[in-house]
Amino acid sequence: MSYFDAASSAPLHPVARQALQASLDEGWADPARLYREGRRARLLLDAAREAAAEAVGCRPDELVFTSSGTRAVHAATAGALAGRRRVGRHLIVSAVEHSSVLHSAQAHLADGGTVSEVPVLRSGAVSPAAYAEALRPDTALACLQSANHEVGTEQPVAAVADACRAAGVPLLVDAAQSLPWGPVQAGWSLLTGSAHKWGGPAGVGLLAVRKGVRYAPQGPTDERESGRAPGFENIPGIVAAAAALRAVRAQAAAESARLRELTDLIRARVPELVPDVQVVGDPVHRLPHLLTFSCLHVDGETLLHELDRADFSVSSGSSCTSSTLTPSHVLKAMGVLSEGNVRVSLPLGTPAEEVDRFLEVLPRTVAAVREKLGSAGPASPVSVLGDDLVVDTLGRRCPIPVIELAKVIDDVPVGGTVRVLSDDEAARLDIPAWCEMRGQEYVGEEPADRGTAYVVRRLAP
Amino acid sequence: MSYFDAASSAPLHPVARQALQASLDEGWADPARLYREGRRARLLLDAAREAAAEAVGCRPDELVFTSSGTRAVHAATAGALAGRRRVGRHLIVSAVEHSSVLHSAQAHLADGGTVSEVPVLRSGAVSPAAYAEALRPDTALACLQSANHEVGTEQPVAAVADACRAAGVPLLVDAAQSLPWGPVQAGWSLLTGSAHKWGGPAGVGLLAVRKGVRYAPQGPTDERESGRAPGFENIPGIVAAAAALRAVRAQAAAESARLRELTDLIRARVPELVPDVQVVGDPVHRLPHLLTFSCLHVDGETLLHELDRADFSVSSGSSCTSSTLTPSHVLKAMGVLSEGNVRVSLPLGTPAEEVDRFLEVLPRTVAAVREKLGSAGPASPVSVLGDDLVVDTLGRRCPIPVIELAKVIDDVPVGGTVRVLSDDEAARLDIPAWCEMRGQEYVGEEPADRGTAYVVRRLAP
Repeated sequence: MSYFDAASSAPLHPVARQALQASLDEGWADPARLYREGRRARLLLDAAREAAAEAVGCRPDELVFTSSGTRAVHAATAGALAGRRRVGRHLIVSAVEHSSVLHSAQAHLADGGTVSEVPVLRSGAVSPAAYAEALRPDTALACLQSANHEVGTEQPVAAVADACRAAGVPLLVDAAQSLPWGPVQAGWSLLTGSAHKWGGPAGVGLLAVRKGVRYAPQGPTDERESGRAPGFENIPGIVAAAAALRAVRAQAAAESARLRELTDLIRARVPELVPDVQVVGDPVHRLPHLLTFSCLHVDGETLLHELDRADFSVSSGSSCTSSTLTPSHVLKAMGVLSEGNVRVSLPLGTPAEEVDRFLEVLPRTVAAVREKLGSAGPASPVSVLGDDLVVDTLGRRCPIPVIELAKVIDDVPVGGTVRVLSDDEAARLDIPAWCEMRGQEYVGEEPADRGTAYVVRRLAP
Repeated sequence: MSYFDAASSAPLHPVARQALQASLDEGWADPARLYREGRRARLLLDAAREAAAEAVGCRPDELVFTSSGTRAVHAATAGALAGRRRVGRHLIVSAVEHSSVLHSAQAHLADGGTVSEVPVLRSGAVSPAAYAEALRPDTALACLQSANHEVGTEQPVAAVADACRAAGVPLLVDAAQSLPWGPVQAGWSLLTGSAHKWGGPAGVGLLAVRKGVRYAPQGPTDERESGRAPGFENIPGIVAAAAALRAVRAQAAAESARLRELTDLIRARVPELVPDVQVVGDPVHRLPHLLTFSCLHVDGETLLHELDRADFSVSSGSSCTSSTLTPSHVLKAMGVLSEGNVRVSLPLGTPAEEVDRFLEVLPRTVAAVREKLGSAGPASPVSVLGDDLVVDTLGRRCPIPVIELAKVIDDVPVGGTVRVLSDDEAARLDIPAWCEMRGQEYVGEEPADRGTAYVVRRLAP
């Protein structure tokens, strides 16, 4: 098996396992108690906090452990927004934040707050200038991830932090993806992380709040974790998480260089080996272990299934692999192709041979999926409406609308148009992306009786 | 070491440890993913849910795992209150609920809701009739623990559930303390539990919501755990928790009989071996492994410290052992002595010899603490005010006010009164309790220039 989905969850680091074992015996008691077992548990918790704070780059009393990265983000946004409620109720997020941040923003909206979503460039990064423009006198909190979880693009945290500081607005950095590789650039006010992303166990997140940042924990609280994370502390998990963070940091320099070579290789070779592929995300300012590409005319779900059968575990932002049947909000915000989307994120220690084998398996897997899809199902009805061809793909899901478009484009006279009728959300993203890849003109979309008509003008012969 | 504080946190059950080890290898991936590692994680999660649901007595799709019992309670109260917001915003709790329930009630109050606190009898149990009286047309939710965590008293859940059902009000049962021993009596609508109380790992709680109960999760959610517990699932912890619950249930019948004999022994022997002790809580309708007593004229903190030095780890609801310097709200609600309070809760498998040694050590430990306290510090100033003696214990903490009262009572003529001036919150509970134990009359309290004057009339010669 080649597990290439470290960005979802990393396998438990051996050091984490060791630490967990040891602290199961020492860390099960209530650290608030004064008897021996309680004091031992407290010592373990304090030591873990110091280690984690050092890795994060903050004071131990600025850091609390939560039960997940998601919980850390939910607590951080709610606490920071409430802490500055007098200033206003405006929240800024980038369009490509993790769902935990976007869910917090939705909850804030539902609660009567206002939210600005800063768009991203095609690389997936926000422009610091665009971010700065979103800052308002009533902005209570700004959120920006350190690096994107789906395409690996690093965000310009330092520049955005400067703008936030100038405006007197605290900046929450979701560092879930980058924390294994190093501390976040200076300037953050709140920071969150998730242990199972760095080889720690599930069930542990962290939340750091700089001294001086206004913060009012929301919901019922208790006396645990400075009143910022209620519930009995999961000390064995916390100890293992802190130990794993130290361990991966010790390997970070060497492993990031090595994995970057491997991901550079995949980024370079995939477009050579597989026709009609778009590699997305910033090629340089990116996480070392993660890359993403999309394959035209490929059904993401089938591709993942076939890769799984070939012993590769990867993830996808294609609509047909998501429970909502919409493409990943990240790909959507970047305006890049979503069909046949594959994210590869290599765990620490991934052998080069596994990457070689992936590059060997991928082309024939994609080809097989394309062949199956190309021949599958009836051709969509094509009709002529004035000077337009109309392809009716209503009721058919990604990547069929794009495949049907590709089938008829040669029948369109150069300068003529074709209208693709579709009720699949992915078409809105994938038809323009296809046009760009194929050198055709995407004219725009129009409402139709059912679904939407996507209008394409044939430019290329 | 004799660890006698299972009610705070039980040592990890050997079965939990085994299950945890095994699932660290199998359960670290994202159960929402469709590749091999994800499917394996999903299988483990599903199996754990089935096992836990069987032990709780509900359907698997009624049960979700949370990150702690506290989180389960917070989610349950918020979700159930929001689900019935149209009915009203009235919440009922008993006065002796776990702090997680009371904190939820405080948050509900702060949010504009109303709360009724049902008092308890001296045994620590609510009266079903009193509980039923609290039900109103606008009651959205009623909460009652299955058994009390500090004194072990079982609550009349079935009778209260009947009253709630008749009124159409859902009943949330916090079953944290009783779940290891068996399922909760029928009639609950929502139920919460905490794995580290039954020998599972920390970091896992459970929340069951019966089908048909109106429930609207609050705060940001995600797609995990049916949208009721956001954040990446801690599957190894969950697997270990479910395995431990099965394991302790298999031992429950035998162990509850055995531990009940041991706690019966302590309940019977302590008052014989130690003068001026009050054993509190229902002697019959109680948890098998837990008992609580209070020792007059003893400083709880010192007693715990001395017991720890003698290798016994116990807990206390005395004011001087709490961070708030107020006595446990449970002892307060019961109206029983809080000074020198000791809770003994035996873990599964506690050898009888440890209990024998406790009964051997306790009397001399209490005697030593009493001797030290009796001779410690200056006597409090005593003055005469009209017909009253006045003892000024302002600025001195529990158990000094009671000790000083005991010192002067012989100087009060029978029928005369003594006023104890105190600014220690515990005096409000402990002076009346002392009067009852000593057969003196507690007249009442009066505001004083500083603190409060507690007035006692000498009856006994």
